[in-house]
Amino acid sequence: MAEDPPGQQFAAGSPRVIVAGATGFAGALAAHLLWRHPRFELTAVTGRSEVGRRLDELYPRYRVPLAIEQLDVHGLDRIDAAVVAYPHAAAAPTVGALRERGARVVDLSADFRLASLATYERWYGEHPRPDLLGEAVYGLTELHRERIAGASIVANPGCYPTASLLGLAPLARAGLIADVVIDAKQGISGAGRVFDDTTHLSMAGENILPYNVAEHRHTPEIEEQLAPLRAAAGASDEVAVLFQAHLVPVDQGELADCYVTTSRRVGDAELQELFAAAYEEEPFVEVVDAPPGTREVRETNFCRVFAKADPHSGKVIVLSAIDNLWKGTSSQAVQNLNLMFGLPETEGLL
Amino acid sequence: MAEDPPGQQFAAGSPRVIVAGATGFAGALAAHLLWRHPRFELTAVTGRSEVGRRLDELYPRYRVPLAIEQLDVHGLDRIDAAVVAYPHAAAAPTVGALRERGARVVDLSADFRLASLATYERWYGEHPRPDLLGEAVYGLTELHRERIAGASIVANPGCYPTASLLGLAPLARAGLIADVVIDAKQGISGAGRVFDDTTHLSMAGENILPYNVAEHRHTPEIEEQLAPLRAAAGASDEVAVLFQAHLVPVDQGELADCYVTTSRRVGDAELQELFAAAYEEEPFVEVVDAPPGTREVRETNFCRVFAKADPHSGKVIVLSAIDNLWKGTSSQAVQNLNLMFGLPETEGLL
Amino acid sequence: MAEDPPGQQFAAGSPRVIVAGATGFAGALAAHLLWRHPRFELTAVTGRSEVGRRLDELYPRYRVPLAIEQLDVHGLDRIDAAVVAYPHAAAAPTVGALRERGARVVDLSADFRLASLATYERWYGEHPRPDLLGEAVYGLTELHRERIAGASIVANPGCYPTASLLGLAPLARAGLIADVVIDAKQGISGAGRVFDDTTHLSMAGENILPYNVAEHRHTPEIEEQLAPLRAAAGASDEVAVLFQAHLVPVDQGELADCYVTTSRRVGDAELQELFAAAYEEEPFVEVVDAPPGTREVRETNFCRVFAKADPHSGKVIVLSAIDNLWKGTSSQAVQNLNLMFGLPETEGLL
Amino acid sequence: MAEDPPGQQFAAGSPRVIVAGATGFAGALAAHLLWRHPRFELTAVTGRSEVGRRLDELYPRYRVPLAIEQLDVHGLDRIDAAVVAYPHAAAAPTVGALRERGARVVDLSADFRLASLATYERWYGEHPRPDLLGEAVYGLTELHRERIAGASIVANPGCYPTASLLGLAPLARAGLIADVVIDAKQGISGAGRVFDDTTHLSMAGENILPYNVAEHRHTPEIEEQLAPLRAAAGASDEVAVLFQAHLVPVDQGELADCYVTTSRRVGDAELQELFAAAYEEEPFVEVVDAPPGTREVRETNFCRVFAKADPHSGKVIVLSAIDNLWKGTSSQAVQNLNLMFGLPETEGLL
Repeated sequence: MAEDPPGQQFAAGSPRVIVAGATGFAGALAAHLLWRHPRFELTAVTGRSEVGRRLDELYPRYRVPLAIEQLDVHGLDRIDAAVVAYPHAAAAPTVGALRERGARVVDLSADFRLASLATYERWYGEHPRPDLLGEAVYGLTELHRERIAGASIVANPGCYPTASLLGLAPLARAGLIADVVIDAKQGISGAGRVFDDTTHLSMAGENILPYNVAEHRHTPEIEEQLAPLRAAAGASDEVAVLFQAHLVPVDQGELADCYVTTSRRVGDAELQELFAAAYEEEPFVEVVDAPPGTREVRETNFCRVFAKADPHSGKVIVLSAIDNLWKGTSSQAVQNLNLMFGLPETEGLL
Repeated sequence: MAEDPPGQQFAAGSPRVIVAGATGFAGALAAHLLWRHPRFELTAVTGRSEVGRRLDELYPRYRVPLAIEQLDVHGLDRIDAAVVAYPHAAAAPTVGALRERGARVVDLSADFRLASLATYERWYGEHPRPDLLGEAVYGLTELHRERIAGASIVANPGCYPTASLLGLAPLARAGLIADVVIDAKQGISGAGRVFDDTTHLSMAGENILPYNVAEHRHTPEIEEQLAPLRAAAGASDEVAVLFQAHLVPVDQGELADCYVTTSRRVGDAELQELFAAAYEEEPFVEVVDAPPGTREVRETNFCRVFAKADPHSGKVIVLSAIDNLWKGTSSQAVQNLNLMFGLPETEGLL
Repeated sequence: MAEDPPGQQFAAGSPRVIVAGATGFAGALAAHLLWRHPRFELTAVTGRSEVGRRLDELYPRYRVPLAIEQLDVHGLDRIDAAVVAYPHAAAAPTVGALRERGARVVDLSADFRLASLATYERWYGEHPRPDLLGEAVYGLTELHRERIAGASIVANPGCYPTASLLGLAPLARAGLIADVVIDAKQGISGAGRVFDDTTHLSMAGENILPYNVAEHRHTPEIEEQLAPLRAAAGASDEVAVLFQAHLVPVDQGELADCYVTTSRRVGDAELQELFAAAYEEEPFVEVVDAPPGTREVRETNFCRVFAKADPHSGKVIVLSAIDNLWKGTSSQAVQNLNLMFGLPETEGLL
Repeated sequence: MAEDPPGQQFAAGSPRVIVAGATGFAGALAAHLLWRHPRFELTAVTGRSEVGRRLDELYPRYRVPLAIEQLDVHGLDRIDAAVVAYPHAAAAPTVGALRERGARVVDLSADFRLASLATYERWYGEHPRPDLLGEAVYGLTELHRERIAGASIVANPGCYPTASLLGLAPLARAGLIADVVIDAKQGISGAGRVFDDTTHLSMAGENILPYNVAEHRHTPEIEEQLAPLRAAAGASDEVAVLFQAHLVPVDQGELADCYVTTSRRVGDAELQELFAAAYEEEPFVEVVDAPPGTREVRETNFCRVFAKADPHSGKVIVLSAIDNLWKGTSSQAVQNLNLMFGLPETEGLL
């Protein structure tokens, strides 16, 4: 082939961005999306391993011809933004250092998702940078668009909360949620570039695997986000979410089934209106009229939502399908970066 | 190779059995299990298509070297038993004819699963042989062992009710179920040897597909079976089950997640006792202490059940894993045949 | 969601193109690529079934919001180009009618791939429009770029010949091929939107399936294309290709392993030079220095080629990886359309 | 469930056998097969990791309720036999120690497969116990049945040589092989319980991956076994095999395509006779008349062989399908153990 893949053709004066932790699935995809983005200049990809190798050797499909560097926050040229794709606890100190260097950061870890320090410490242990918690905005774009635009730290949501909250928000805002069970299924990429029995094809294949029963870290994240929506509708009581996760043998894809006991009887017509009103202006949420398979949104930033009343049980069923690596992680990070830098929200994502 | 696979080595005087509808997944597996069974003589396999072909040509792995015949009930030599693997509505007339010919029948269709004719007709349309309904026993072995032993028609349960009911029965018998949501996931073999967008690997692969939202035929079947268990415990009110089904890209495997709102607070210790007591004598139900993946029971007649209290929501989660084609269908049929002919229940199944 | 997906934003005065046969995998992907193409206006998608349904209902991921029409060649508004995705024999008459209507056509079928009518009729039966054979150019872009640019009918190659010929052309042009065995493996999408035992996930999964042993239709196509390359190098004898095909349980992906007995001993250095020289100007052929997995080129128009001498056997091994639906079919069709309409060859494909 | 799975019901006076290295795929399957075997008593399973855990916790489907022990050769009670499932170089010293303890050993590693020490050292490095080489018999049952019966060390073949040699032996014995290319494809279990990019479902899925191009260790093993067969037929020259391996996303399954240039023209009738004669008495080799998919032999000890002449190229194509973990590894080990202890060869394997 002639030369390096026809790469970054960003506009002059574009914001300069790095991806820290580009060797994992989430960071690599973020690098890919930013490399081909017309308005960001991807200036470096860093890793805590694989330093010196080119990213397109590790991830040929992503075609990012940059060498993986060791992150040296103080040696960096001017940067405007960073995506940090580190595990929780490891992320916060790096986010802090990058902030101090002047970058606005989208953090893919759990470190800044929970507003409550106590809740964080119960689920994740000591927080390395609690001083920054107040600066962070929860990055579910559709819920916090305005605050994200002005934020210096955006805490990108977990993929499970992304799907669940987009499914539940219209009901929460209407004060309709009395009780909710969420049964979520996800592809193996959700486990990350982690090598063990849960990701080996000969063990993950032909398997449907429930995990973290009655103790999933995404429960408090979902509850913390639902609470103000419900409160605004006058629902003052708390709702204890039951969240259950599963791995199934697909690569990328996630479906959250939300079973909602409503505070009053709700029919399909009302549901249709509620969801249409909630999402009619949203570029990336599609309210559909048939149960969505995850294949429909694979490798896109779209979320497909389907809501139906079950007259038999009196409950409402909401199905929410996303690609866990895209809208569930990396493309939502780019959606947020677009907002933070005054670009059209859909830039580079369609 | 020397000759036909070393085939049936059944004991003399064994019951003579046929499989009607052996070209589908369920019938073919039933034929396989009966062919290798030490105590049944498989005398014929019949089909509504593929007549004349050998079954081991259609299903090489099953190694049943019989040619597929057109079913001629009146021309049959003496038979003692039959497995009927036809679609609903098509099954009942054949079951009737085989009964009149003296055979005891395990029917894999839905035709005799519901005791209430009205419920059947609401979900499936007109019943071809309502006169036989009173003769049929619901074939979930662990619930109706004694009646199955004496039955002339056994209505083999659907795979979803099998997994769901084995998960819920201990709670129902204790009168603990106030409300239940069942979220079930199943492999593509559950769709049968049906050729369409839901089974094509290029569409079923990389997909998590919910279907029949708020209208699944297995709901009434589960409710009809739960009712007497609950009633025996003094729970007189009705429970409206919410059942939701999904296809995921595995071949064989099924997981039912049962989310139970209990009539009073229940803890893990009580759950453990309840489930241990319910299943300690059962040869094919394993109460496990970690969430079961379906791979653990693939190609077996086992059901693995795991129950846990969720102190946060107050609910109880029961996970029940089976192989939809084995315990969910064909090996349970053999388990029932064993009982009907006075054989050890595990014969040919371990 | 607000409205139809942000669709065609083609330049004014763009060529108007239709896709005939858009309900199959190849036609649907061609429609997708043309819909998002900045320089073509996709004016209609037609089908022989599913008329009236929207294409984005059948193929949600492709997001083409056009309704499927019945093809009415005479009722069409002005069109400049067409992609025809019909089975062989059905394609030729439609190609002819579209030609007569003024369109330049890329035909995805086998109808115009073979220059020799006798060879066509031996493998496919009677040819419906032999009068058009002389007008057609074989559409392997890298071999016939100049003639494709001026062609009125382009016969898009089969996916197997695409991978095989890109692997073999440098050796053929150097007169080095004395004998060749091609062992090719392909994903299930290669079988098309066809519903049978070879595509059902429960039968195609966990299977490696060889087919058409010693009688594959792609053999003459490969031989016809190799002949002039070899002749130009002075190799006057014929080479009888042995081509063997397999289905493996991936969706999209194809690997051709070419085992070449060379006319004289060839080492790795010479191979490297030959392949570098052949492809250094090619935008879509990547000569790589490690064995390519098909995942590296999935959903791209790239072909990755790897060549190595085996000192032990004296043979040369060439591995060629493509996406059978993209470079093997539909994206190569767009690559050809770009050439035919004077656009940059990579337009809409990177 | 009542108690431990209905386990070993071996005959009194059965040979006592252990599996060393039972935590890997091959050792675990060997333990499973021996546990359910009616004539061996599995007395221990050992591992170099996971000591103390029960094997049925690691591999629930195999249902072997023994705890994994540290191997202590000197502390062992009387044993009659052992299966050693260690990596090469690690295996030989253990095989030696077990021999000295009186056990007859089936070794699954490469340590005793090659008769030539020089060849071993070229491909694997220094041999830890060259003194034992003369004692070992190559364990491809169908080629060396008599010598295996009397052997103290059986070197179980690699899975690739098993499939390849069963496909090629009839031609080799007839002196017909002038040249051969073997293109083999295998499921991910062939990589073992190894955790890396080649086994992670998100990287191994949707991939067809060639590896070890022009340098596969199984080449000398195949050549060493072919040589005496060819010599016996008077073919004195050497044949340099070209062997190429691939991973495809199935769990268990392997297909070897052998492309044979014959020393004289051979037609289908002669092939049919040759293969029928070679295998008509073999209980586990099936000569079939349609190209075999690997699914047909999954989880069996069978090998399906299909041979066809290609009149166009003059070559002969032999397709050989096995389950890489069964006939390719562990069930063939049991087949050999049966022979070594005077049991029917098929005992416990049908």
